[in-house]
Amino acid sequence: MKKVFLISLLVFINLAVAQSVQSPSGKIAVNFKLAANGQPSYSVNYKNKPAVLESALGIKLKDKPALDANFDILDSKTTSFNESWKPVLGEQSSIKNHYNELTVSLLTKETKVKMNIIFRVFDEGVAFRYDFPKQAELNYFIISDEITQFNLTENNKVFWLPGDFDSNEYEYNETRFSEIDNSKINMNNGIGVKSIPGKYTVQTPLMMKAPSGVYLNIFEAAVVNYPVMHLNADVTNYKLKAELVPNAIGDKAYLQTPCVSPWRTIMISDDARDIVASKMILNLNEPSKIEDPSWIKPMKYVGIWWEMHVGKSTWDYAGSQNATNFADAPKASGKHGATTENTKRYIDFAAKNGFDGVLVEGWNVGWEDWNGNWKEEVFDFTTPYPDFDIAALSAYAKEKNVKMIMHHETSGSVSNYERHLDRAFDLMKKYDYPAVKSGYVGRIIPRGEFHDGQSMVNHFNFVVKRAADYKIMINSHESSRPTGVGRTYPNYIAAEAARGNEFNAWSVGNPPAHETILPFTRQLGGPMDYTPGIFEVKMSYYDKNKTEQVHTTLAKQLALYVTMYSPLQMAADLLENYEKYPDAFQFIKDVETDWDESKYLEAEPGDYVTVARKTKGKETWFLGAITDENARTSEVKLDFLTPGKKYKATVYADAANAHWKNNPIAYQIKTMTVTSKSKLKLILAAGGGTAVSFEPIL
Amino acid sequence: MKKVFLISLLVFINLAVAQSVQSPSGKIAVNFKLAANGQPSYSVNYKNKPAVLESALGIKLKDKPALDANFDILDSKTTSFNESWKPVLGEQSSIKNHYNELTVSLLTKETKVKMNIIFRVFDEGVAFRYDFPKQAELNYFIISDEITQFNLTENNKVFWLPGDFDSNEYEYNETRFSEIDNSKINMNNGIGVKSIPGKYTVQTPLMMKAPSGVYLNIFEAAVVNYPVMHLNADVTNYKLKAELVPNAIGDKAYLQTPCVSPWRTIMISDDARDIVASKMILNLNEPSKIEDPSWIKPMKYVGIWWEMHVGKSTWDYAGSQNATNFADAPKASGKHGATTENTKRYIDFAAKNGFDGVLVEGWNVGWEDWNGNWKEEVFDFTTPYPDFDIAALSAYAKEKNVKMIMHHETSGSVSNYERHLDRAFDLMKKYDYPAVKSGYVGRIIPRGEFHDGQSMVNHFNFVVKRAADYKIMINSHESSRPTGVGRTYPNYIAAEAARGNEFNAWSVGNPPAHETILPFTRQLGGPMDYTPGIFEVKMSYYDKNKTEQVHTTLAKQLALYVTMYSPLQMAADLLENYEKYPDAFQFIKDVETDWDESKYLEAEPGDYVTVARKTKGKETWFLGAITDENARTSEVKLDFLTPGKKYKATVYADAANAHWKNNPIAYQIKTMTVTSKSKLKLILAAGGGTAVSFEPIL
Repeated sequence: MKKVFLISLLVFINLAVAQSVQSPSGKIAVNFKLAANGQPSYSVNYKNKPAVLESALGIKLKDKPALDANFDILDSKTTSFNESWKPVLGEQSSIKNHYNELTVSLLTKETKVKMNIIFRVFDEGVAFRYDFPKQAELNYFIISDEITQFNLTENNKVFWLPGDFDSNEYEYNETRFSEIDNSKINMNNGIGVKSIPGKYTVQTPLMMKAPSGVYLNIFEAAVVNYPVMHLNADVTNYKLKAELVPNAIGDKAYLQTPCVSPWRTIMISDDARDIVASKMILNLNEPSKIEDPSWIKPMKYVGIWWEMHVGKSTWDYAGSQNATNFADAPKASGKHGATTENTKRYIDFAAKNGFDGVLVEGWNVGWEDWNGNWKEEVFDFTTPYPDFDIAALSAYAKEKNVKMIMHHETSGSVSNYERHLDRAFDLMKKYDYPAVKSGYVGRIIPRGEFHDGQSMVNHFNFVVKRAADYKIMINSHESSRPTGVGRTYPNYIAAEAARGNEFNAWSVGNPPAHETILPFTRQLGGPMDYTPGIFEVKMSYYDKNKTEQVHTTLAKQLALYVTMYSPLQMAADLLENYEKYPDAFQFIKDVETDWDESKYLEAEPGDYVTVARKTKGKETWFLGAITDENARTSEVKLDFLTPGKKYKATVYADAANAHWKNNPIAYQIKTMTVTSKSKLKLILAAGGGTAVSFEPIL
Repeated sequence: MKKVFLISLLVFINLAVAQSVQSPSGKIAVNFKLAANGQPSYSVNYKNKPAVLESALGIKLKDKPALDANFDILDSKTTSFNESWKPVLGEQSSIKNHYNELTVSLLTKETKVKMNIIFRVFDEGVAFRYDFPKQAELNYFIISDEITQFNLTENNKVFWLPGDFDSNEYEYNETRFSEIDNSKINMNNGIGVKSIPGKYTVQTPLMMKAPSGVYLNIFEAAVVNYPVMHLNADVTNYKLKAELVPNAIGDKAYLQTPCVSPWRTIMISDDARDIVASKMILNLNEPSKIEDPSWIKPMKYVGIWWEMHVGKSTWDYAGSQNATNFADAPKASGKHGATTENTKRYIDFAAKNGFDGVLVEGWNVGWEDWNGNWKEEVFDFTTPYPDFDIAALSAYAKEKNVKMIMHHETSGSVSNYERHLDRAFDLMKKYDYPAVKSGYVGRIIPRGEFHDGQSMVNHFNFVVKRAADYKIMINSHESSRPTGVGRTYPNYIAAEAARGNEFNAWSVGNPPAHETILPFTRQLGGPMDYTPGIFEVKMSYYDKNKTEQVHTTLAKQLALYVTMYSPLQMAADLLENYEKYPDAFQFIKDVETDWDESKYLEAEPGDYVTVARKTKGKETWFLGAITDENARTSEVKLDFLTPGKKYKATVYADAANAHWKNNPIAYQIKTMTVTSKSKLKLILAAGGGTAVSFEPIL
């Protein structure tokens, strides 16, 4: 199984007993220390300067002595690892996994409990985890707290989200570390369920930039059978401490030896591009457990979705969000989106324009009374509305060579979803749906659990595994954010797990900088279903009283298909809006979703990202460049192109007078012939972007 | 659907606007009162004397004004109802449901919330429930407390179990009401998980006898989407108040209008036989929702079970209860009970002796590490041990015309069970298992939930409904106790939900009075899988160091097949023990499990029960008589037999010198010819019993 993904060069070298370890290049060094009282800690240097100061390590247990001091060192060893592996889908077709590893084996003085701390040092960062070997002294245990610290050197600039056990759909705050304060942010932000434990709790991935210019990113990898880690900030002393998400009764994690914690990761570089390009999080996850992944395929799709967000149609049949209107005497409102007729329109469009799939939300009974009431039994995931002919549509889609994408909104009732899961997947197989978008809007049931607790982490991973039994791909929304587990289960093809494009339709929205931060944060753990491609940017187009809008230009919406990596990409706007701008739409039709190579040409969190990607197995390239609220001009070298080849570049750029707020739709399209020696001038409007396709000239 | 069960005579008469209502015979009267402050209350008279004093009614809500005062009466009306219906299986083939009903419609003065209180008065008791109509003023709501009181007149004798949110497997305490005190009882009683909320909390059904000789029983019927009701006792003032079982975060019930509470029931009679014979709890439940119940059949069964309790074999393959012994290198201990060979022996025995089924516990992987660790994923319910050939055994059983009974121990992990339920039932259908014994030993997962909370009540009902999809019968152990929901889902064929026979094998056991109390308590809600039929009563038979024993004579074990009504009856002892006593075993072979009629001839809670039952569709009768720790002699009239017919009576009685402790196995068997004019002298040893079969002489 593993053999499919490991290419070569699997080397373990037992270097020596040691308590420090460097990255392969030597740029990053980790020092492990055991204090006189037996307390373990670590520190990190970057280019010989402190990057993380001495920070405590350890775990507190429920009803057992803590594992945070009174240790002796039993043993320590350093090894090296260097391999390349091929992801099923990805930003690149081969990923190098190269690190040095230090394992420190600890033993508590009195209770004789063994715990190992394993450090891996890559050229772009450090990872460490707690490892609890099988032993008579520790079998079942409950984690009551993880005391892991990340003590910073300076008052960094930080891109932070409030630590929230239930939602990661916030706007980023860009402040000094000392200014982190959840009480000061606007909570009227369109998020339904919020559970913020404290004023100074923030989420990971936490992206920072030190005054010295060094970038730091604190995150975690391989969150399996463990809660999500948020961080508590000591804003005076620039310290961070792990804050694990509790369960309904306040415990953090139930474990049995042998077991490991997730990896705690610290990426460090003085070049921001190293952070966005890093595959460290994926590398820290287990290889694929899906032996034959041939059914896992990228998909570009359209769907019945944005029309609900803009108020043109409704998820529910009766259009009133009033349960009695359906249960008592089902009466179609005429506004229901997921009708057979409308779905056929989308299938026709997908077939005509080369899309792989059609998502239909609101196809199933339950939307009358689905949200905000902590209701256990809302959907059964198998009963279509009377105006949605699933059998006929499935046949129609097949005839047109288009795949249907299922939708499972759980409204947070995981108990109910798990009960119906096999039946829901059976229905999908019956009608040949290869993928499902799942949703977890609302408070979690079992009541008392949070979206980010251990049992929900287990749920999200369980659904992916169960789906693999059916050869079904998962795209989860409102889940805990991915931590690279998609390497292990490549059918976990995408997730939302951050503030997506739809917030622009009905809330304060996503500020122009938003998409320049996501690649440094959310996207480190796996692809995001951001649903770009909105051409009619202003909601006043639908209702002149509305002031909401997408906070980008149209050209930036195109560029997002390249900057926001995902093998599952939606063209989210209404079909008629694409038909109005066929020249711009051509880019969405052309752009690919699976890549041989990705080159981050320019990147600064909160400011801009420029990336070029080579299509998997083809000579075509695509480039996306985006900026924040500031207009930007730059020049990039096209030296990624194959030397000696000529390419037709089609540049989809902001018009000279474009502006995300005042003139968002204005774009211009130019074509030119380029080679690897060419330079390309990028002129981005405020909140703008540029998308480029490169087609080899034969 | 309903038509199948309603026979005739469905009469509603609107008598008058009234605030009191009497039973059809006039013996019982309920008075509803609204105090000056708008607080509702009720009182009950029995034969014109107070039986329940003025007791408060009402509900407290979370985040909303309480519904316990400030009411006006909107309306009240009285109706009469009289029908008979046919249970699928039962103690009698036709059940009369005759009551007068008073509905008081209340409206809160300020918030204008409507709540009805519905009283039904039967000749053997009173029931009332809260009814929340659909209304704009109340849609979703959360119950934080139910304040329902039951204020008694005297210091009754009470048969009580400590109120425990997780277990009903206690011995009964027989004390005065004033002596209720959980702190004084022996907690070293073999129960694994205990959650007792207070010193004075007791369980329902709560059986009482007033000094005046009137019997009272407080219970509930139709617990659906609501937690179990325990009771808090005010031991000084003889008052009881509802104590609903909370969920993980302390809430009691999540409801949406229109909805109802379970019925709160008070049975009252000066003849104890009226209590045990009452079908009031069943009558208060909804008619069957299973349209074609032809697949629901009574079963007498043997199984691989008691041999584990006596230490002769083990549930787990490796025999060590050590997970690594299975997971790392499965090695059979030679003590595993559920082997193919052993199972065949049970199938052969069942076929030879006319049993319908064979239960096999320990057939599936997981028992190595199943109990006491609050572990989420223990069993998958589909993977047999390597020495259990499920396909071959299923074929073998079919050939022998014996049905296999499945076993699903969940170890309390309901999350895990629900995830696997469809697959578990699919396996059963594949191998033609018509019934499953489920188990819930251990703390519940989702963690923080109790066995008796709303979500677990919903789980138990959900499993029964889901099983009906597969035409599978359910026999749940360690579930919340039944409240007549088996009327609605007749495939809920039995439950344990009280202290069963197995406690006698390895704990202080069940005192001789135990089985004389169960018909007044646990069995009011539905059949109990008590697993009688232990012939080798003393555990010293297996291990001379053991002092545990079944606290009955052998003859009483036979009588239990009649006194402990269940359509699913186990012959629980080892096969070889039956082979040693073939004459006594004949009664177990002969006894039936489904009845046309049942006549309670004698009954006194805690002392004795004598019942005669006529086989469904046949002229044979069976009689069971049991006593507590006291020997007992009585004479019963056989006037239940068909006049003019002669019957061969076979009497399985205690030997003259029998005694549950000193000489439990000694029995004598006599045959005689009897008619409806005969009298039968019953001579029961201490802890003894008599079983009689009546065969018509043609």
